[in-house]
Amino acid sequence: MTDESLIDEDRYELDRATVRAIVAAAGAGSVTRLTELMEPLHAADIADLLEQVDSEQRLDILRLFGGGIDGEILSELDESIREEVIGALHPEVLGEAMRELESDDVVDIIEDLASHQQDMILETLEDGDRVAVEQALAYPEHSAGRLMQRELVAGPEHWTVGEAIDYLRSHDDLPEEFYHLILIDPRFRPTGYVTLGKILGHPREQNLTEIVEDSFHPIEALQEESEVAYAFNQYHLITAPVVDEEGRLVGVITIDDAMAVLDDEHEEDILRLAGVDEESSLADRVIATIKRRFPWLAVNLVTAVLASLVIAQFEVAIAQIVALAVLMPIVASMGGNAGTQSLTVAVRAIATKDLTGANVWRVIRREVLVGLVNGVLFAVVMGIVGIIWFGSPALGAVIAVAMVINMVVAGLAGTVIPVLLERANIDPALASGAFVTTVTDVVGFFAFLGLAAVVLL
Amino acid sequence: MTDESLIDEDRYELDRATVRAIVAAAGAGSVTRLTELMEPLHAADIADLLEQVDSEQRLDILRLFGGGIDGEILSELDESIREEVIGALHPEVLGEAMRELESDDVVDIIEDLASHQQDMILETLEDGDRVAVEQALAYPEHSAGRLMQRELVAGPEHWTVGEAIDYLRSHDDLPEEFYHLILIDPRFRPTGYVTLGKILGHPREQNLTEIVEDSFHPIEALQEESEVAYAFNQYHLITAPVVDEEGRLVGVITIDDAMAVLDDEHEEDILRLAGVDEESSLADRVIATIKRRFPWLAVNLVTAVLASLVIAQFEVAIAQIVALAVLMPIVASMGGNAGTQSLTVAVRAIATKDLTGANVWRVIRREVLVGLVNGVLFAVVMGIVGIIWFGSPALGAVIAVAMVINMVVAGLAGTVIPVLLERANIDPALASGAFVTTVTDVVGFFAFLGLAAVVLL
Repeated sequence: MTDESLIDEDRYELDRATVRAIVAAAGAGSVTRLTELMEPLHAADIADLLEQVDSEQRLDILRLFGGGIDGEILSELDESIREEVIGALHPEVLGEAMRELESDDVVDIIEDLASHQQDMILETLEDGDRVAVEQALAYPEHSAGRLMQRELVAGPEHWTVGEAIDYLRSHDDLPEEFYHLILIDPRFRPTGYVTLGKILGHPREQNLTEIVEDSFHPIEALQEESEVAYAFNQYHLITAPVVDEEGRLVGVITIDDAMAVLDDEHEEDILRLAGVDEESSLADRVIATIKRRFPWLAVNLVTAVLASLVIAQFEVAIAQIVALAVLMPIVASMGGNAGTQSLTVAVRAIATKDLTGANVWRVIRREVLVGLVNGVLFAVVMGIVGIIWFGSPALGAVIAVAMVINMVVAGLAGTVIPVLLERANIDPALASGAFVTTVTDVVGFFAFLGLAAVVLL
Repeated sequence: MTDESLIDEDRYELDRATVRAIVAAAGAGSVTRLTELMEPLHAADIADLLEQVDSEQRLDILRLFGGGIDGEILSELDESIREEVIGALHPEVLGEAMRELESDDVVDIIEDLASHQQDMILETLEDGDRVAVEQALAYPEHSAGRLMQRELVAGPEHWTVGEAIDYLRSHDDLPEEFYHLILIDPRFRPTGYVTLGKILGHPREQNLTEIVEDSFHPIEALQEESEVAYAFNQYHLITAPVVDEEGRLVGVITIDDAMAVLDDEHEEDILRLAGVDEESSLADRVIATIKRRFPWLAVNLVTAVLASLVIAQFEVAIAQIVALAVLMPIVASMGGNAGTQSLTVAVRAIATKDLTGANVWRVIRREVLVGLVNGVLFAVVMGIVGIIWFGSPALGAVIAVAMVINMVVAGLAGTVIPVLLERANIDPALASGAFVTTVTDVVGFFAFLGLAAVVLL
């Protein structure tokens, strides 16, 4: 670990020595040293730093470096500590930080805050900005309307390149970043867009309508942000105009925000699949973490007890042949793993829209067939293990047959359950795991112990 | 499901009726109808369509609509069927498709093909493009060098806005899409970049060096593409220049490619966590799928047998108290789930660089504490269940204590194992699951049965 700073430089990560030095400087109360260390850092890295240190260290840093916290840092911060950080800032610093942000970033920051903090921030904004933010907050959470920025560049369809350039040249209040000029009809409905590269690469008399991009996908303001992220990824959009219900241009979404949504969606999927609340953060405290983990464990306890009830039906068989107790977890475990494989593939394919009505039957057939073949392969192995270990060909046969049954069921349940949940508008990532492992546990124990009771007793 | 076309339109998904109509038209051999249906579709949607139909239908479609397959469609296709599709295309169509692509897309298409198909495609390219593609292929797989496009726009640092505009206006061969002008020093090393918006918004005499962006992050050509995607997401980059080992500008990466990498990385993580080969695709056939699933199931079989060996040590105890066999899977299952929660949070946090040397001890402490508290909560529940169900306070006490032990171990193993794997340069998503559940199974069975043997016999 002595070469860690070297590795870290390669990997866009705050190196450990810097974090230590910053914590030390904050602890020692040295403003000069702290500023010297933190000034060169990128806003996103400062946000990471604030997430990684503990609460006491964070307050030390904010007390000494509070004036250096700008809007960009706040918008990079994890929600779990944002309230704490904002609460520790001087109102003037906060106001200054907010005023330098585009409306979408302000919305992103305040939408999860307590209402007194929301009000405090809204008050620091200029009238125009405050109205823009309040209008965005009127859209539902996780909608395109919340994600979009209102600062945009648009012009009438009849413009030429020269007119566009003159317009851009004469406006001081252009958005901080923009990549397209959106063309609008007289009713303010977007009809196409032109990249700035095309505007710069064509003669002044060129009509803009003739150099618009193919990839023009207006997005409805009420669209779910996850669908927006999908559209950006699917169609390689860089920006997309956002329209209201009448099709009028109300804002624009840029791909970096869509990429952040895609990243969040993935985080949600991966955490939900593991039964962890999707809002979980590494900066959560113990109590918050317990609350986020408990519900899934409670569900799991119920399903585990259910499986135990199945086992309890065969107490007589187990009392006579203890080998059954030794071997039964193997059948359940293999089924659980095979089911998890199938369900993860299905959940992911549903998220990427690769699993649809058009191919669902083919995929189910494939998963069942895969379960059958893998089941037979492992049945042979376990049959032999059963015979050698316990010297009983009949026991070997029982575990082999139970294995095949459970792995076929695993393939079936692992695909059908997420598909049905999706159709019922329940996030398959959230609930599939509990259902599938319940099925494979119950079927696994029942098939193995039931067959054993019939064949061996 | 009658309103499916409505839903689908909202969700950027090929609607089922269209897919059906296309398959029908292809089956009937109707070129006119097929073309009418497919022409309006976006390249990414045609690629999705080809992935969703079965192999026979795919070949029908390609036979009839082969001429309509352009470069963009090929670059959107999943690798698993790309060879098949390319093999079915007329060489002239293929050549035409390739010539319209930027070099990065050609590289992306051919890097996974069999070498005879690679050669065939390289031959269709013009000399300059072929050299560019061959140079890109000289970079390692999954490196920034493979991801970048060589088509870029750069100019000397001393340029003014006017000189930049004159240059752009006078060049016919500008890249299809570009968003920045990169400034280079006399040795061709990038020193900053200017957005086209800034160029358009400033007077002709403005020096470019005074309006460069803050977020300038040159990327080394040998950098891992996953790190590139991280950097784009972390620093909200839209494009980034790529440099060789001497720091000279060799290409540029655009955020849409970085977003695709981020998406792939997530897919890899989520599949690996479930023990599925990360190259898995829904278009894989049965044999390929079996091969991709088998190894993890084999690992799981070994760990399950290991757990069984632990149980076998307590055959005497189980023969005397069958209730042990009924209850023991509950302890193992709760530990396994708690461990999976911890490890998923840890794996995800490692991937997003939120879990670092700076906070690893705090996170471990938190996970252990969470395991302890949740363990105590569920121990109380299970203790009561044990007493009511089997009428034995001693049995209730045994399962309660075993539960606490296993859930503390789960929190510890679920965090420490991925961290250690990461330090050993093994992808924690790939291997953590097997280790953690082995630990929780073995500890769960051993704690419960061992305590029972001591206390109850």
